[in-house]
Amino acid sequence: MSDTIQLKSRSGGRAARVALRSAPLAEDKRPVRAGMPGGRLKVLTDAEVLRIHHAALDALEQIGLSQAPQSGIEIMTRAGAILGDDGRLRFPRALVEDMLAKAARDITLFGRDPKYDLHLTGTNVHFGTAGAAVHIVDLATNTYRDSTAQDLFDAARITHHLDNVHFFQRAMVCRDVLDNLEMDLNTIYACCSGTTKHVGTSFSDPSHVAPGFDMIHRIAGGEAAWRARPFISNSNCFVVPPMKFAEESCMAMESCIRGGMPVLLLSAGQAGATAPAPIALAIVQAVAECLAGVVYVNAMAPGHPAIFGTWPFVSDLRTGAMSGGSAEQALLTAGCAQMHHFYGLPGGAAAGISDSKLPDMQAGWEQGITNVLAGLSGLNMVYESVGMHASLLGFCLESLVLGDDILGQVMRCVRGIDVTEHSTSIEAMKAVCLDGAGHYLGSDQTLQLMQTEYIYPMLGNRMSPKEWAEADRPMLLDKAIARKNAIMAKAGRQIDPAIDAAIRADYRIYFE
Amino acid sequence: MSDTIQLKSRSGGRAARVALRSAPLAEDKRPVRAGMPGGRLKVLTDAEVLRIHHAALDALEQIGLSQAPQSGIEIMTRAGAILGDDGRLRFPRALVEDMLAKAARDITLFGRDPKYDLHLTGTNVHFGTAGAAVHIVDLATNTYRDSTAQDLFDAARITHHLDNVHFFQRAMVCRDVLDNLEMDLNTIYACCSGTTKHVGTSFSDPSHVAPGFDMIHRIAGGEAAWRARPFISNSNCFVVPPMKFAEESCMAMESCIRGGMPVLLLSAGQAGATAPAPIALAIVQAVAECLAGVVYVNAMAPGHPAIFGTWPFVSDLRTGAMSGGSAEQALLTAGCAQMHHFYGLPGGAAAGISDSKLPDMQAGWEQGITNVLAGLSGLNMVYESVGMHASLLGFCLESLVLGDDILGQVMRCVRGIDVTEHSTSIEAMKAVCLDGAGHYLGSDQTLQLMQTEYIYPMLGNRMSPKEWAEADRPMLLDKAIARKNAIMAKAGRQIDPAIDAAIRADYRIYFE
Repeated sequence: MSDTIQLKSRSGGRAARVALRSAPLAEDKRPVRAGMPGGRLKVLTDAEVLRIHHAALDALEQIGLSQAPQSGIEIMTRAGAILGDDGRLRFPRALVEDMLAKAARDITLFGRDPKYDLHLTGTNVHFGTAGAAVHIVDLATNTYRDSTAQDLFDAARITHHLDNVHFFQRAMVCRDVLDNLEMDLNTIYACCSGTTKHVGTSFSDPSHVAPGFDMIHRIAGGEAAWRARPFISNSNCFVVPPMKFAEESCMAMESCIRGGMPVLLLSAGQAGATAPAPIALAIVQAVAECLAGVVYVNAMAPGHPAIFGTWPFVSDLRTGAMSGGSAEQALLTAGCAQMHHFYGLPGGAAAGISDSKLPDMQAGWEQGITNVLAGLSGLNMVYESVGMHASLLGFCLESLVLGDDILGQVMRCVRGIDVTEHSTSIEAMKAVCLDGAGHYLGSDQTLQLMQTEYIYPMLGNRMSPKEWAEADRPMLLDKAIARKNAIMAKAGRQIDPAIDAAIRADYRIYFE
Repeated sequence: MSDTIQLKSRSGGRAARVALRSAPLAEDKRPVRAGMPGGRLKVLTDAEVLRIHHAALDALEQIGLSQAPQSGIEIMTRAGAILGDDGRLRFPRALVEDMLAKAARDITLFGRDPKYDLHLTGTNVHFGTAGAAVHIVDLATNTYRDSTAQDLFDAARITHHLDNVHFFQRAMVCRDVLDNLEMDLNTIYACCSGTTKHVGTSFSDPSHVAPGFDMIHRIAGGEAAWRARPFISNSNCFVVPPMKFAEESCMAMESCIRGGMPVLLLSAGQAGATAPAPIALAIVQAVAECLAGVVYVNAMAPGHPAIFGTWPFVSDLRTGAMSGGSAEQALLTAGCAQMHHFYGLPGGAAAGISDSKLPDMQAGWEQGITNVLAGLSGLNMVYESVGMHASLLGFCLESLVLGDDILGQVMRCVRGIDVTEHSTSIEAMKAVCLDGAGHYLGSDQTLQLMQTEYIYPMLGNRMSPKEWAEADRPMLLDKAIARKNAIMAKAGRQIDPAIDAAIRADYRIYFE
């Protein structure tokens, strides 16, 4: 382009800069890190937030939710909810406001290693995986096969080594484990064996929670250690939209709360199918359902850590099929993040899902756009943000590695522009324009900022066409496969060998 | 995923919905269209905008710009600029403020077809191409070859048929045209032959402007018709950052202004190379340079339409090479858009550039993230938004077609969430939850919103893994090639045949 300048690389300076870049950076100097605050994007005005809030309160008062389990009915009616003749629990505004006042704020989701603790406060942003794909994408053949416990363990241990993936919620169903209790236990163990980052899991039956805790206490080194730093949260589909409780999931949630496990109050409607088609009304319904969850949790255990999980999805209205990678999805999630901030509650929603079956250009734009809107909106917990294809049906390990690059770029956007007296001082311009070399390459300021202000992709390729041809045209997916293999080769098991041996003696574990 | 619901497609309803979707929509019902207002993202606070503004004024007063042509020195000193002993023109604050008061606002960039007119006001967003790649990407062989006049014409006529690409600035250099005047004339003619959307061009020498206008007047049907609706703007690199005028480009600009052509005041520094490394200071420098351009234009021709073209690029500071797809680039462009709004001037900047050599996942995330930040920031003219690879060195026709899908998603994000009494009314929830089917599929509201609120990708694939396997695993790039070929097969020439014959008789035209 005549409009720009392609600077020749100067090999001496370049070698020095590449070497500088290769030195490890102190955690506080890294250009991006977990929990950076977002919030510069506001897809809703304050008045629009209030309108959605009031509509959600109206829905709770006038429509309410059906199908609460008996235990839930007792808990919520004791607090002030009203059970109608139609079997629906309705929630007076004052009850919702009282429970919001009791709800936990500024919570920490612990890692088994404290350096991975997630502080859910304000607009702090964290990215991670979520569930649950039933397939894994095989890039060697471009086919989908059933996902296994080994795949889940592999995804967890890759995630352990990715800087920009901050937590690991079980991304796949272990379909090779046919017994449901064994599956739930293998899910927990695969996640914890792979990473010491915070883990999210789910129970397929309320009766599995107790045996789950037995295993978790062994991993933690006892119940007291677990309760001091609960490092697993329960992803809890406590509602079946529209406006129905999920009885079994509610019972599992009650057990998790008694066991000291943080819960993700997950409302996963699909706009146009199980949620209303207008984006605003889909948010209203999700907020109403999660507010019912806030009442439930805080009526049972005031201040128990819970994540406000408004996860409305999008339907492709032509077919009713889910579309996770759409702009409408990005807007739903961004709008939900603002509702979380309005309530001052720790919140989570979904972004980064691709509808594409493969890690191709479509996957790139879908994951990039949805994740960056989530991050800029200041969503505390961005679930599904990496590795997820086919509208949640397929997980791809190479895409997980590629997604780490995407999330690095996204977090750099979240970090924003540093505008200070120093960063806008024209002294640097004077030095270059009036006295100096006429360019900023190699200036002190440039070298200082190189590592702390700029993030470099691990896999993204910035070669010129000439360099690229000389390097024999490296392909992105080949690089992703190589990085995945390199991580797997070095990734160990994140469980003490003695504990591992003991657990493997007592349980049937389906992965190596 | 157990957390969501995959709805079975119901073939009757689905067929009806697919048919409904296939009917053409009235322009005002389309879910997205050119010029929708953005601005919900503010990467800078008001105080930060002011800080950058004041630093830019300081730079103009204290550093100024060197190397203005004699004509420019006369124009600007007559208005109040001060020529120093060091040959630099310096600009007192009062002069800048006076010229800002005279500058054109709320301008229209005309298409040859009025339906493509672009109204540059407020935060209205338009996406288009820009230049200038020197290669075209051949997807059949994954290689780069020199771009030609035929390639440029092909890109223009494809753009003519893409809903979400709103203007066509010359995307490639016609490298098969060795004579520079012939090249400039073929550039104009290839663009205008391909599309009646607004065109951007550039002159490689001031002496080419007059013969360029001769041709343009013939395309327009005379000078009066041209001046009534100038449908070409001149992309004018009037500065060579840092803080130097580009003499020849300034002289070409003066000629364009006399000929009634809108000008893009293009400042294309590279942060860390020809612009400062701090993002904020790179914006300061670009703003200072463009304010000098505003003085220049309005001292010469008060109110002449000019686009405030702060286009700071990013260097990969390890190598000095340009990185167009980075998060830092997205932030630079978003910050510039806010400066345009501060001045109330029509503005443009670059987004959508990929550093990847191919339309792969990297290209998807780079184009998606940078374009969506530009759109959400309310940038009037998003240049380089589609088709551009290898950090501006390569253009790809298939990527152009894929980018149309990306820009559709981006514009849907720009449009935002409709929050009204109607769109948040819980009556639709009552109907479904208390009286109805228990889901929203096929409800009146859903069907009404299907076409007007949701945008569907042309190439993006939303099949389930099963459907995809049954369809023999369609690949995205194959679909892009097919759509490109289908458009090329139907795309005619957008020049009256008699005028075309006459022009071809008088000029050597290098494309068919």
